[in-house]
Amino acid sequence: MEKVSFYSLVKNFKAVFIDSYGVLKNHEGLIDGVQDSIDYIRSQNIPFRVLTNDASRSQEQQIQVFKNLGLKGLREEEIITSGMLARQFLELKITSGKVAYLGTENSAEYILQSGLEHVPISDVDLNSMKDIDDISAFLFLDDEGFDWNLHINKTVNFLRRKNLPVIVANSDKYYPVSKSDVAIAIGGISRLVEYIVDQKFIRFGKPDSQMFMYAFDELNKTGTFAKEDILMVGDTLSTDILGGNKFGLKTLLVLSGNTRSDTVDLKINSSGIIPDYIADSILS
Amino acid sequence: MEKVSFYSLVKNFKAVFIDSYGVLKNHEGLIDGVQDSIDYIRSQNIPFRVLTNDASRSQEQQIQVFKNLGLKGLREEEIITSGMLARQFLELKITSGKVAYLGTENSAEYILQSGLEHVPISDVDLNSMKDIDDISAFLFLDDEGFDWNLHINKTVNFLRRKNLPVIVANSDKYYPVSKSDVAIAIGGISRLVEYIVDQKFIRFGKPDSQMFMYAFDELNKTGTFAKEDILMVGDTLSTDILGGNKFGLKTLLVLSGNTRSDTVDLKINSSGIIPDYIADSILS
Amino acid sequence: MEKVSFYSLVKNFKAVFIDSYGVLKNHEGLIDGVQDSIDYIRSQNIPFRVLTNDASRSQEQQIQVFKNLGLKGLREEEIITSGMLARQFLELKITSGKVAYLGTENSAEYILQSGLEHVPISDVDLNSMKDIDDISAFLFLDDEGFDWNLHINKTVNFLRRKNLPVIVANSDKYYPVSKSDVAIAIGGISRLVEYIVDQKFIRFGKPDSQMFMYAFDELNKTGTFAKEDILMVGDTLSTDILGGNKFGLKTLLVLSGNTRSDTVDLKINSSGIIPDYIADSILS
Amino acid sequence: MEKVSFYSLVKNFKAVFIDSYGVLKNHEGLIDGVQDSIDYIRSQNIPFRVLTNDASRSQEQQIQVFKNLGLKGLREEEIITSGMLARQFLELKITSGKVAYLGTENSAEYILQSGLEHVPISDVDLNSMKDIDDISAFLFLDDEGFDWNLHINKTVNFLRRKNLPVIVANSDKYYPVSKSDVAIAIGGISRLVEYIVDQKFIRFGKPDSQMFMYAFDELNKTGTFAKEDILMVGDTLSTDILGGNKFGLKTLLVLSGNTRSDTVDLKINSSGIIPDYIADSILS
Repeated sequence: MEKVSFYSLVKNFKAVFIDSYGVLKNHEGLIDGVQDSIDYIRSQNIPFRVLTNDASRSQEQQIQVFKNLGLKGLREEEIITSGMLARQFLELKITSGKVAYLGTENSAEYILQSGLEHVPISDVDLNSMKDIDDISAFLFLDDEGFDWNLHINKTVNFLRRKNLPVIVANSDKYYPVSKSDVAIAIGGISRLVEYIVDQKFIRFGKPDSQMFMYAFDELNKTGTFAKEDILMVGDTLSTDILGGNKFGLKTLLVLSGNTRSDTVDLKINSSGIIPDYIADSILS
Repeated sequence: MEKVSFYSLVKNFKAVFIDSYGVLKNHEGLIDGVQDSIDYIRSQNIPFRVLTNDASRSQEQQIQVFKNLGLKGLREEEIITSGMLARQFLELKITSGKVAYLGTENSAEYILQSGLEHVPISDVDLNSMKDIDDISAFLFLDDEGFDWNLHINKTVNFLRRKNLPVIVANSDKYYPVSKSDVAIAIGGISRLVEYIVDQKFIRFGKPDSQMFMYAFDELNKTGTFAKEDILMVGDTLSTDILGGNKFGLKTLLVLSGNTRSDTVDLKINSSGIIPDYIADSILS
Repeated sequence: MEKVSFYSLVKNFKAVFIDSYGVLKNHEGLIDGVQDSIDYIRSQNIPFRVLTNDASRSQEQQIQVFKNLGLKGLREEEIITSGMLARQFLELKITSGKVAYLGTENSAEYILQSGLEHVPISDVDLNSMKDIDDISAFLFLDDEGFDWNLHINKTVNFLRRKNLPVIVANSDKYYPVSKSDVAIAIGGISRLVEYIVDQKFIRFGKPDSQMFMYAFDELNKTGTFAKEDILMVGDTLSTDILGGNKFGLKTLLVLSGNTRSDTVDLKINSSGIIPDYIADSILS
Repeated sequence: MEKVSFYSLVKNFKAVFIDSYGVLKNHEGLIDGVQDSIDYIRSQNIPFRVLTNDASRSQEQQIQVFKNLGLKGLREEEIITSGMLARQFLELKITSGKVAYLGTENSAEYILQSGLEHVPISDVDLNSMKDIDDISAFLFLDDEGFDWNLHINKTVNFLRRKNLPVIVANSDKYYPVSKSDVAIAIGGISRLVEYIVDQKFIRFGKPDSQMFMYAFDELNKTGTFAKEDILMVGDTLSTDILGGNKFGLKTLLVLSGNTRSDTVDLKINSSGIIPDYIADSILS
């Protein structure tokens, strides 16, 4: 497939959805030149949303992280996280009780925002009927903030005791922590627990359509946008491109992250996930 | 869980989504009394949509089938099929070329409606470069209309030759054909092909959110409905209830189809899929 | 990995296990020069066994096929098929009743040899309690000899009616039928049925250890051979090499079949299945 | 299925294979009366082997544990652990280099016995080419002896750097730690790592045939036993009974562990794994 220029391509669309990791930033920080790209999109009056499978931080905290990395001018409504879908689920489906979770205090912000009480699994007494009774949902939020051995096992035993809605707020298997290394994400941990307790949890985040639908609905509160008006930009075939394609958006694969120039053809062929366009990055 | 009356429950909602098989009809035909239930909903001015994982017939043909079974007054816009999502995908993502498919001529109606040419896999010459080049998408539509041995194998070899979008228009594994017997659905056949060619296809239909989203969007063209205003009614935990829950709807499991009174508790416990309400049927 | 010469390597072993398809023959027939290789092994007094995931023909019929292809001098005891493991299972575990099957009359030879009666699923009357009661095991034997639509569905409904041992006599997903084309094998079909009825069947054939154990035991009836004395030769990483490695044999991957010279390194790296040696073929 | 008496049944066999947990012991310790059962088998001159999916302790240490629980007279050769299969693999396939592992120092005994050097993953420097080069196999041994977060992630990154044989010495998902609670076993942890690095590891332990074959071969060093001479006794359908059936042994399911009297029929029906006999326990 011939490579295109992001700057030329984007002008044909009325809005853009952009993946965060591998497009805007990488393990070293902000990708050089990304501020220019964002400024360019704004100058063309093309609204955008950053779609990220991240439930470890609230929208506000995400903005702060981008600011610290050097990206200026992002607004809260321009960030869509998979944690927001988990929050919406709680708001719509859980009317009372507490929500137990695996994650940091920071990530529990999404529970707080839903108006429900949150309790880390570490604070639940599995031998107290009252403690068990009080909890009405369980949330996988972040891979940090708990002792893996102690509290993953405790989660397993909690879920063996009580049948309740279990939500995974980030479906990613792992995330990069350096040029060569990764860390298992809460989505990966939740797969282990699913396998042990033999149940299927509710997962939010790309490639699931609900993430795109949420961003689409949010965008349409600010104007009128059809699916064909929107370009989805991402670096990962199995999340950004698969999800974008299925939702009916035109998709652009960039080679500044997970997918490398020398193996892109092989990966497209073996996966059967085909982007509409390919570009080196969003930098030109 | 205590059982509720559908008639009492539905009055608390502004709209209803209803599964077809196991709620409105079963292997013997229309469930006795369903006409009264539909009339009751209408008398309460509660709009409804029938959501069915069926791509073997168009909306219009579905209406005709219900009419033949004895259910009167259904309107075309009240039927949402997973085939319509496949059609939408073709409209949004496939701009040229032909669409090859497994299914009946009837089911190919969805391709026709998208404005694209359709060709059954039986008519494709795998040794003709032109034939292969001309095809820009593949669609699994129905389990009938082809020779399983000959044309499932031909599909495998076609997909080994060409990398293109593959869409499954009905994700069900099987469907009932009598009190005790089932038949493998096109969703099941597509799993076999996925397994053989080692790729992931794009699947439409419950429990996937996109089906609910489509019905939700269609409904909102006729008024203003929030997710909390809608009740999803179905007989199957893994499709109707799981999908309804995830989308954020209140869910009612009825025991007139796949899920039986004597095993419902066991099934809920072992699956972890919990409906908000349970009723014997929609008949009272 | 450096390539070795099969002729030089084999001299270091007291016995050889050889895969059939991709090593001795391919879609065009016998691989040119294979007669010399077999003669060479014999001249070195190295006994061998041909291990094949094939339950469509008995040992005797397999010999005949090789003879027809032009390979002379193979003896019955030199052929080990996965069908023989199915036969052994029947002999050891099924003491009475009939065995129903999917496959050709030819493949049913394995049931006949076990001393049990065989009945094709096409001849079973699902509405006859007697017919159902009479059957004490079900066997997946061959992808031919039945109507896929009719009899795969009939198998599903039979297995929904009766809980009994189900055996898959060939675990391969597919087999090559020409340079570019494959056909779904009975192992693939059995996966579809497993998926529909949600059970795990008993599977025989490489890479499962039991196939290697059977060949090992047969070989040791003719002398004394330790695992370290035996070289396993095959063209497929996921069956021949994985199974040979796990059983504790030294393994030689040949590039005359499924695995090609230009992608062998990639395949080894992505699968994590590592042969001890690599050679172009067994021809030199 | 009618229940039988173990004492009456066992007299029809020349040897017995016995699962450990759920048959001989449970979370409270030795099951009351088991000493009598063992004494009874011995008095009938029926040799037995205890088959356990446990790689956390050597044969010798296992004997000591049974002694501490109060079971007297077990001999080292009467214990077969899945760790012994991992050791055999190392002996046959790994000729040089060190073996890295996840587990306790105790469990590494199996590596020591193979004559190879062992190194816990915690001591490997991922940035040292020499460290990486020195390691020729990786072993999952025990769920204890390491920091889950730190060292499971380190294992993932090690396996991303180096392609080498990976062995799981205990394929169990979890093990009971009290009447109601379980702990994730190293077999479960290895599944998480497999899922993250997208490779298939080599797994030892029931239900895999190789475990039964090993016990069978060991037994046959002391006499002549055919498969039909041996009874497999276990409390778990998916390991003891499935594995015993497939290997061709007669199988006895006991209800003193994982499988309970009130759900045994349901479990047999839904799994399709059918024991030849059922008994309450081995106590009478």
